[in-house]
Amino acid sequence: MPRILLTIAYDGHPYSGWQSQPCGKTVQDHLEKSLAALCGTSVRVHGAGRTDGGVHALAQSAHVDLPDPCMPVGKIPVAVNARLPTQIRVVAARRVGPDFHARFSAKGKVYRYRVWNAPTLHPLEIGRAWHVPEPVDLARLREAVSQFEGRHDFFAFAANRRTPVGNTVRTIRSARVRREGALLTLTFDGDGFLFRMVRLMAGAALRVGKGREPMEWLSDHLKRRAQGKARYCAPSDGLYLVRVRY
Amino acid sequence: MPRILLTIAYDGHPYSGWQSQPCGKTVQDHLEKSLAALCGTSVRVHGAGRTDGGVHALAQSAHVDLPDPCMPVGKIPVAVNARLPTQIRVVAARRVGPDFHARFSAKGKVYRYRVWNAPTLHPLEIGRAWHVPEPVDLARLREAVSQFEGRHDFFAFAANRRTPVGNTVRTIRSARVRREGALLTLTFDGDGFLFRMVRLMAGAALRVGKGREPMEWLSDHLKRRAQGKARYCAPSDGLYLVRVRY
Repeated sequence: MPRILLTIAYDGHPYSGWQSQPCGKTVQDHLEKSLAALCGTSVRVHGAGRTDGGVHALAQSAHVDLPDPCMPVGKIPVAVNARLPTQIRVVAARRVGPDFHARFSAKGKVYRYRVWNAPTLHPLEIGRAWHVPEPVDLARLREAVSQFEGRHDFFAFAANRRTPVGNTVRTIRSARVRREGALLTLTFDGDGFLFRMVRLMAGAALRVGKGREPMEWLSDHLKRRAQGKARYCAPSDGLYLVRVRY
Repeated sequence: MPRILLTIAYDGHPYSGWQSQPCGKTVQDHLEKSLAALCGTSVRVHGAGRTDGGVHALAQSAHVDLPDPCMPVGKIPVAVNARLPTQIRVVAARRVGPDFHARFSAKGKVYRYRVWNAPTLHPLEIGRAWHVPEPVDLARLREAVSQFEGRHDFFAFAANRRTPVGNTVRTIRSARVRREGALLTLTFDGDGFLFRMVRLMAGAALRVGKGREPMEWLSDHLKRRAQGKARYCAPSDGLYLVRVRY
C-alpha cells in the first residue's frame, strides 16, 4: 500500500467545501469517487485541512494509500484528473513514507485573501475577491494585520462550531498586506488555523482599516478572552489556501 | 445632447461578443437597454471596436449622446451599473466634445493573451487563459511575436469575414511576451486590429514557439499575400482588450 501525497488545486465556488458530506458535492468526495473508479476499490483521502465552501486552493495537500499493485506515481495526476470535474485538478503526486500524514505532518499553512477595494467590483473578480467598496487606510490595515504576528490565543478569532476547547493558541509566522491598484492582498503564514480563523482575522483587520473599529479593539481581542468573539467574518469569496508547509 | 465617453469592463464569457445582435445577448445590447431604462428613450452606444464572444475587456471604450437634461456625469457609472448584469461594469464616465468618436478618434488599442503553458489547466484559469499543454520554447516565441512589430500588411492574419478589401496594413507599436511560472502573457499594442487579427497572431506565434512551424513560415505570411491565410486561430478564452488609446 504505497502512500502518495497529492497536491490539489480547485475553484471552490461550485463545491460545498473540502470535507466529505452526505451531499457528495465536496472536493474530497470528488477525489474519492475518482480514485475509487481508478483503483476499483474505495480509497480514503486524508486532507491537510478543511476549506469552507467557496474557498479556493492553489495547493491543498492530501495523502492516500493506494492498493498495490498500482500505476507509476507520475501517471496519477492525469489518470485522476480524467475522472474529475475541470474545477478540481491534481497538479502533483509523489510517494511518501508510511509515517507521513497530510494533516499531522504539516508544519504550517499559507492563506491569502484578495480584497477588491474600489467602488465597483471588477467583473473578472466576481467570486475571486472580497469586494470592500469603502476607503481603506493602508497604513492602518498594515498595522492591524501585523498585530496577528507571533504566538497568541486566537480564541476570539475562531468560530464556536468545531473550535477545540482550551487549545486556541496558534503562531502566525508572518502576516503581510500588499496593494496593487484596487487589489489588496493579505497573506497569513501560520503553524495552524482554527475554524474560520483567517476569515475572522481578515474581517477584523478590514474593519479597523476602514476606521470602523479602533486598533485597541483588535489587540484587546488577541489579549483577553473576556472580550468575546471578534465576530466580523469575511466572506469565502477571495480566500485562497496557497500551500501547506511540511 | 452631451457626449459621454464610457470605460467598460466585462467578463466576456456569458455574452455573444460586444456588438449588438438580434439575440440581444451582447455587451452593447445590455448597455443600450440599461441606458434606455435610465433615460426613458433609446440610446445608441458607439463602441471603440468589437470584441468576439468570450473575449474579456479590462477597459473597452464607447461613447453615447445622452438626452438633455441629464444626471451629473459622475453619477452615470453607479446608475447604469444598477441596471446591468454584474459581469458588465461601467468603471468610468467623462464628458467629451461633440467631435469625439469612440471608434474614429482612437489612436490604438492594447490586447493581451494569457496562455497557461503547463500539462494541466489551473482550475482558476478556466475561461481566463488559453491552455497550451505542449512545451513552448520561450526564445522562439519571443522572436515569433517580435516579427509582428512595425508596419505590415496583415492580410494573412485577418479572417475573411468582415475584412476590408485592400486595406489590411496596420502598425504594431510593440509586441511583448512575459513568462511567470506557467503563465505566458502576450501583449500587442497597435494602431488598429483586423477581424480576428490578435487571435491569428497569437495562434501563429504559439505554433512557432512549439516548434510546429518554422520562423520563416510566420515571416513569409507577413511579407507575401500569396502565402494565403495563417489559419491557426487561438480561442477567445484568454484574450483581453486591455485599453483603447486616444
